[in-house]
Amino acid sequence: MTEHTLILLRHGQSDWNEKNLFTGWVDVRLTDKGRQEAARGGELLAEEGILPDVVHTSLLTRAIQTANLALDAADRAWIPVHRSWRLNERHYGDLQGKDKAQTLEEYGEEQFMLWRRSFDVPPPEISADNAYSQVGDPRYDGIDGDVPATECLKDVIDRFLPYWEGPISDDIRAGRTVLIAAHGNSLRALVKHLEGISDDDIASLNIPTGIPLVYRLDADLQATGPGQYLDPEAAAAGAAAVASQGKA
Amino acid sequence: MTEHTLILLRHGQSDWNEKNLFTGWVDVRLTDKGRQEAARGGELLAEEGILPDVVHTSLLTRAIQTANLALDAADRAWIPVHRSWRLNERHYGDLQGKDKAQTLEEYGEEQFMLWRRSFDVPPPEISADNAYSQVGDPRYDGIDGDVPATECLKDVIDRFLPYWEGPISDDIRAGRTVLIAAHGNSLRALVKHLEGISDDDIASLNIPTGIPLVYRLDADLQATGPGQYLDPEAAAAGAAAVASQGKA
Repeated sequence: MTEHTLILLRHGQSDWNEKNLFTGWVDVRLTDKGRQEAARGGELLAEEGILPDVVHTSLLTRAIQTANLALDAADRAWIPVHRSWRLNERHYGDLQGKDKAQTLEEYGEEQFMLWRRSFDVPPPEISADNAYSQVGDPRYDGIDGDVPATECLKDVIDRFLPYWEGPISDDIRAGRTVLIAAHGNSLRALVKHLEGISDDDIASLNIPTGIPLVYRLDADLQATGPGQYLDPEAAAAGAAAVASQGKA
Repeated sequence: MTEHTLILLRHGQSDWNEKNLFTGWVDVRLTDKGRQEAARGGELLAEEGILPDVVHTSLLTRAIQTANLALDAADRAWIPVHRSWRLNERHYGDLQGKDKAQTLEEYGEEQFMLWRRSFDVPPPEISADNAYSQVGDPRYDGIDGDVPATECLKDVIDRFLPYWEGPISDDIRAGRTVLIAAHGNSLRALVKHLEGISDDDIASLNIPTGIPLVYRLDADLQATGPGQYLDPEAAAAGAAAVASQGKA
C-alpha cells in the first residue's frame, strides 16, 4: 500500500494566547515560550527522523515563525516554502481583540462556547474600520474574493479544502513529506476531514501548540489511523489547556 | 522610465566568519551577532519604506536565517519565498573548513589572494569523501548536473545568471520589489553584472554583511546608478573588514 507522511504543527504560544485575547487574523507574534515550543517541535521531528520535504504555512507571522524555528532546529531550513491565506486561523469576527474571560463573563458560557466551537454559527461580523479588521492589509491583495468579516468552522473548511486538494495533495502525491504550519482551527478543519469526524464531534477536538501531529495517509490521501503526537504526554496537557481557555 | 527596486542582502556573521574559516557551501549558522545584523537589516528596510514583495534565498541556512530575521523585523514574514542553489556562496573547493590565517601563512599572500579574488582560477577541488564536501546532501538532489568540487567567481556567474535572468527577472518585471538574501560571492557576481564591472576590477569589490544594498533598475533591468547601502557608514566599515580577512 502506498503510504504518505503528513505533519501538522500548530504555532507555539503567541502574545495574545498569553494575554487570553481572541486573535483570529490579527497578526500577533510568538512569545519566548512560543519560540521555544516551535524549536522543540523541530527537535522532535529530527529525533524521530520524520523530516519534511516541503512546508506550507498560513500568511500569519506566528505560523511562519513557528515553521522557520522548527525547520531550523530540524536542519531543514532549506526546503521549499509555500504560503496561503487558506491556512489562516479562523477569522473571529468582532471578537478579534476581545478578552476571552471578559467575553465569557459578559455573554455567558452557552454563547461563549457557541462562538468558540459551533460548527456553523460565526461570531458577529467585524466592521472594516475596526483596528482589528484585515481589510486593506496588502498580504491579502491576491486572495479570491473579499477579506472575511467573520468565519465559523464550516467557512474555514470551505476555504481550506481547495488548498488541501490542490497544492498540498499535489506535493503528497509527488512523494513528498509535507509539513503544514498553521492554526488551531485550520488544523481542526483538516483533522475533521482526514479522520472523518462529524460536525458535532469536532467541537470537542482541541489541538495543542507546538507538538508535531503525524498522519500516515493511504493512496487516496485518507488517514490510515488517528494522528500521532510526537510527544503524547505534552500533547494531552496542551489540549486540556486549550479546552479550558477563558475559564477562571 | 520604468523603474524597479532590487534589494541585496548578504547574510550576517556566521560561526565560521567568526572563526575565520573558509566556508563556501558548508552549512554553518549565524552567530548571535549575525542574527542581530539580520534583524537590523530588516529594520533599515522598514525605516526606509523599501519593502520586498518576494524573497529569493540560497539553499544555505545562514542566508535563509538572515532572510527570515530581516523579513520578520520588517513585518514582511508573509511574502512568497523561493530558494535556489544558484544563489549559494562560491564553492571554496579543498579550502572549505580551512583556517584563513593559516592558509595565508602556509601559501603566502599571492596564492591566498588568487584563491580569494581571482576571476577564473578556482581553488583545488575537494574530494567527495572530505567531511566538508556536499556530495550526497539531499538538498542538492534536484540541481542541474553534479554538486561542484570547487568554483571560481566566473563559475558562480555562469550558474547564477540563469536564475537572475529567469525567476528573479520575472518577478521584477511583474512589478515586484525583490529581496535577494545570499552570499559575498554570489552577490559580487550580480553586482558585477548590474554595474558592468570588469573581470579585473571586481577583485577589489567587497560586500559587507547584513546591510541592505538597494538598486534602482531600468526597464532592461540594468542599474540606473551604483547600489546604495541603507547604512553607508556601517557598510564602509564592513567592506573594509571583509577586505582584510585572513590578515593579522
